[in-house]
Amino acid sequence: MIRLGVLISGGGSNLQAILDHVSAGTLDATIAVVLSNKKNAGGLARARAAGVPTVVIEHTEHAGREAFDAAIVTALREHDVEYVALAGFMRIVTPVLLDAFPMRVVNIHPALLPAFPGIHAQGQAFRYGARITGCTVHFVDRGTDTGPIIAQTAVAVLPSDTEESLSARILVEEHALFPKALQWIAEGRVTVASGATRDERPRVVVRDAATALGLGIAPSPPAASST
Amino acid sequence: MIRLGVLISGGGSNLQAILDHVSAGTLDATIAVVLSNKKNAGGLARARAAGVPTVVIEHTEHAGREAFDAAIVTALREHDVEYVALAGFMRIVTPVLLDAFPMRVVNIHPALLPAFPGIHAQGQAFRYGARITGCTVHFVDRGTDTGPIIAQTAVAVLPSDTEESLSARILVEEHALFPKALQWIAEGRVTVASGATRDERPRVVVRDAATALGLGIAPSPPAASST
Repeated sequence: MIRLGVLISGGGSNLQAILDHVSAGTLDATIAVVLSNKKNAGGLARARAAGVPTVVIEHTEHAGREAFDAAIVTALREHDVEYVALAGFMRIVTPVLLDAFPMRVVNIHPALLPAFPGIHAQGQAFRYGARITGCTVHFVDRGTDTGPIIAQTAVAVLPSDTEESLSARILVEEHALFPKALQWIAEGRVTVASGATRDERPRVVVRDAATALGLGIAPSPPAASST
Repeated sequence: MIRLGVLISGGGSNLQAILDHVSAGTLDATIAVVLSNKKNAGGLARARAAGVPTVVIEHTEHAGREAFDAAIVTALREHDVEYVALAGFMRIVTPVLLDAFPMRVVNIHPALLPAFPGIHAQGQAFRYGARITGCTVHFVDRGTDTGPIIAQTAVAVLPSDTEESLSARILVEEHALFPKALQWIAEGRVTVASGATRDERPRVVVRDAATALGLGIAPSPPAASST
């Protein structure tokens, strides 16, 4: 069992997936607090409906990113949070937050990192002409979507896809992957090994779990498909 | 039926896969010539064993990349080559070759581009801690592994993997994907659409084919696996 704080900025569909897994008993976590940087974020209603405490900390009311993150850290600590899940939180986090929760801030990104970091990753992959994209759960470090990878799901780009249909299919996989990775953490199966040398990246080890998922269910072929 | 020139620098296992598919009737191509920049390349013996003409053009004997590529273009034209396959060809090709065969030079890369371009892509992915990597067949443009993607295969990185075992599993997929993509070209199913705007990338359309492959056969779970 872990105490999880979830940071959101918007509708919170990944938050909903987390809440659903907690309520179904497939994620051994207490959602200690849901924190939004926007007071109108749709996810706040989802949290309240699940009886989860909510806090709004508007970044516009803080003089800079560090002050904003310090307020977030205070709120997370007030709710005894152990791990932080970024679920569509549209602010870049600073070392103020990361140092308070070292290798305990987890993010979901809608691409197979290190491909397509940053915003609109689904559109980036679509416009690039990638045939395979997906989603990644990773610990957050000081770079943009550069942190140690916990798990990934591959998603096929279909000939019939639009950016919207592709994004929707990736989102389905996000909703499965994020709670699964959080459950591994809750079960104590996730460890981070420092690199042996300065140049080596930290490595995430997940005991007894398949950390590469996806494409297992073949996508529906196009109507005229022959191969 | 297409006339294919294959450029190699080494052992030529991807060349062998192409030769095997031609001989099995699953690749409607004539291998018009195998061209190596190294006279000791193991792939030359594979070509001779299959009765395919070979040419050695050593880059060390040409004053610069353009002169080297001009000699290659001459040899390819002498053998009436329509499409060029780079099968472990370890030289950067110049516009001299690309302009002679526009959108007709095809490469296989051992990663899911745009992730891990350049050399030692399997090791790059392994050391990065990626959970999913793979291979990509793409048309070659003036960048390094940046050209329009034809098809990709996803490969899981297993907890038990070394760089060598991962590379070996990717290579198996390369040997399947490269002849498959070349066959689509031979069947006239592959077209390249220019971007609608200057900033838009050219897009490869493959008629009636699944251009995203892999992870379909679940990797063997580790002995103690439970998830």
